[in-house]
Amino acid sequence: MSIGTVSQLSRDLRSGKRDPVDLVAEVFDRITAHGDPALFIRTLRPRAEAEAQAARLRLRAGNPASLADGVPMAWKDLFDLQGTVTTAGSVVLRGDVPAARDAALVHAAMRAGMVSVGAVNMTEFAYSGIGLNPHYGTPRNPCDPVVARSPGGSSSGSGAVVAAGIVPVSIGTDTGGSIRIPASFNGVVGYKTSVGHYPMDGVFPLSRTLDTLGPLAQTVEDCVLTDAALRGLRAPAIAVASVTLLDFVIPDSHMMDDLSPAVAANFEAAVARLSAAGARVRPIALPELREVADLMGRYGPLTSAEAMDVHRERLSGPDAARVDPRVVRRIRMADGMSAVDLIRLTRARADWIGRINARLGSAILICPTTPSVAMPIAPLEADVEVFFHHNFRALRNTAIGNFLDWCGLSIPSGQDSDSMPTGFMLCAPRGQDARMLAAGLSIERLVRG
Amino acid sequence: MSIGTVSQLSRDLRSGKRDPVDLVAEVFDRITAHGDPALFIRTLRPRAEAEAQAARLRLRAGNPASLADGVPMAWKDLFDLQGTVTTAGSVVLRGDVPAARDAALVHAAMRAGMVSVGAVNMTEFAYSGIGLNPHYGTPRNPCDPVVARSPGGSSSGSGAVVAAGIVPVSIGTDTGGSIRIPASFNGVVGYKTSVGHYPMDGVFPLSRTLDTLGPLAQTVEDCVLTDAALRGLRAPAIAVASVTLLDFVIPDSHMMDDLSPAVAANFEAAVARLSAAGARVRPIALPELREVADLMGRYGPLTSAEAMDVHRERLSGPDAARVDPRVVRRIRMADGMSAVDLIRLTRARADWIGRINARLGSAILICPTTPSVAMPIAPLEADVEVFFHHNFRALRNTAIGNFLDWCGLSIPSGQDSDSMPTGFMLCAPRGQDARMLAAGLSIERLVRG
Repeated sequence: MSIGTVSQLSRDLRSGKRDPVDLVAEVFDRITAHGDPALFIRTLRPRAEAEAQAARLRLRAGNPASLADGVPMAWKDLFDLQGTVTTAGSVVLRGDVPAARDAALVHAAMRAGMVSVGAVNMTEFAYSGIGLNPHYGTPRNPCDPVVARSPGGSSSGSGAVVAAGIVPVSIGTDTGGSIRIPASFNGVVGYKTSVGHYPMDGVFPLSRTLDTLGPLAQTVEDCVLTDAALRGLRAPAIAVASVTLLDFVIPDSHMMDDLSPAVAANFEAAVARLSAAGARVRPIALPELREVADLMGRYGPLTSAEAMDVHRERLSGPDAARVDPRVVRRIRMADGMSAVDLIRLTRARADWIGRINARLGSAILICPTTPSVAMPIAPLEADVEVFFHHNFRALRNTAIGNFLDWCGLSIPSGQDSDSMPTGFMLCAPRGQDARMLAAGLSIERLVRG
Repeated sequence: MSIGTVSQLSRDLRSGKRDPVDLVAEVFDRITAHGDPALFIRTLRPRAEAEAQAARLRLRAGNPASLADGVPMAWKDLFDLQGTVTTAGSVVLRGDVPAARDAALVHAAMRAGMVSVGAVNMTEFAYSGIGLNPHYGTPRNPCDPVVARSPGGSSSGSGAVVAAGIVPVSIGTDTGGSIRIPASFNGVVGYKTSVGHYPMDGVFPLSRTLDTLGPLAQTVEDCVLTDAALRGLRAPAIAVASVTLLDFVIPDSHMMDDLSPAVAANFEAAVARLSAAGARVRPIALPELREVADLMGRYGPLTSAEAMDVHRERLSGPDAARVDPRVVRRIRMADGMSAVDLIRLTRARADWIGRINARLGSAILICPTTPSVAMPIAPLEADVEVFFHHNFRALRNTAIGNFLDWCGLSIPSGQDSDSMPTGFMLCAPRGQDARMLAAGLSIERLVRG
């Protein structure tokens, strides 16, 4: 049983059926009951209680700050939270001075009345799609009560905390899939905004070009409500689109290759339901997408170069030994990358974005979010090459969207025979967030089946 | 005696006092009379005559295409001119296929009725401020009839062809000072536009981030008239600013250090005339400007990295030996530059632009365009270290503006005792071209003295 959706809590808080201070107590009871010590890197109970007290006054006066006033939430631990040390999932930052002020988006959430209960776990420096963390432990995927499975990454705690029903929404970041992969693995909705959608001030960077922020929540509507609150809107400006007017394209590319049987079956079933409901769904030839890996192989990964900008001094000093070697290895992929390589990669990227978006037109691209469901953690921990194989696979379909400057939305599309969730992804060009969310609202029930 | 200014020719062509076809003949007579074989890389007499015939018909019908209809002009040889091979001052491009179409700006000039008479010389690949060219010869600076002096670079031919009175205007490019240095050295006006002011399609690149285009002409008014014609305007939208409303700042930085006596004296005299006429002129502390060299030293020059992007394959093949070794050396400064260096340089640059422009506010920065007048060519040819010393010095004041994304205008400010011209430079933040040109129109007479 979850604590409720943003939408339910919004109604119940405004009607007085539920109380924000009681809700905070319930969140902390749920954290204790859930019992995963790797879920939160730190909780913020005094702050949460103070924010809930203020929300209670506004709600009792009939003057809520937003539709999300009093709604509890958790932050991936790379958002500055005033007075605490942002760890970015690392131990090397623990000695840093506490943040002098909230990240801009944390501040926006507070202005909307949302209640920040704590900072959840993540892949160190946000650099992998699996969610392993050797320092704070790896949060367990709540969908499997028996086997410890990957929560996805890098927003591992954000996916798990929503799937565990502890808070209705958590804000993560997505540079290669770090919102959408945990959404897919944990059976929740993840919304990767376009670059520039939210202010980046006070967010620990991975790649300044590709980093984006966004909510993980139980429904598309919850993402829309949260987004409206974070942007200071009184109510969402997004309406459900008519299914019969929607135009979806499925890429005839490697994004559809080598899917696990349940992922393929659930995707095909969702597409069949969309078609039956009157949506247009058609294949599109996008051979260009295969060139991504080729480009990266030739010039080096953009994320590594920008991560090396952030971490170069750290990795050449004594702290290097205290960083997850799997993360170090990914950053070090920038070692041989020259200025000219970066210039060529950047130009090729701009050229690609123009060409591929022109091919898409006003259609929304759909595909499985991840080619597999969440995998057991033990083999990943045991063999670094197994880890890299699965990490590459987890990121395969999502990272294309970051490279092409797309926004994205992952919606649960059913389960496999072990009850592990599969994900269905929508992608649209940068700035087309409202159109993509409207389509998401419209098709969510059809996708879930 | 010059062929006349754009302004004079504009009036005379529209009144019928002069004829565009006759003007083309006069241009070619002047080219012959001038006799410098290093000035033009190629002439385009048939094209010029055809364009002049068309202009004659429009002018006789009282229907000119623009205020510059029928005005002859020359292009730096890195603009594509349909049917001919763009050399960019190099011999390695001579075997390339002829341009299939005009560069966008050449096309714009043709639409405005301007008559393209040929492509003038330049530093190979536009990469130096002195103008030496071992392949096509170095154009002589027309201001010294006795000693062969530098025409400035890289738009060497553009400065010399206007100073020689052969055409009233020539379009150059400026990546570190390549319009303003030849303007200063040849006693003409040079206008470096802001990045994005003109389309770059069909222009051989040096640095895609820093490259800008602009006219060299005899007067500020001629630059304004040409700019209006190239932008498809019926008449310039720029009016003379009132001198008493102008606010100039002189940087208290290395831009004012180590000036030759005549450059310093002519600058001070111009400033005194501006002040006497009621303009506000004040010093401004800009210690940040000294950090440029430091930044470049730490990370490498942005221009080298972008030039290496253009030339990497060329410089690793047999053509490398056919490129001016002074140019190769400058491009090779990118050899040790990593992707991270470029990222850091780019971020430092953006930060600087914000901070320094905020300090400038709405003031226009003024300083000497170059710290010295044009130097004799022989010692530069004889010793490569002497060349690099003078090249660095020639670029010192102008390159700051490219790095800071400024527009700029160089106006002649008198001569030294050998009758060699000195230059006075105006600089304003990107996009402030109209304001800077208005100030230039207003102060031109005062600057010239």
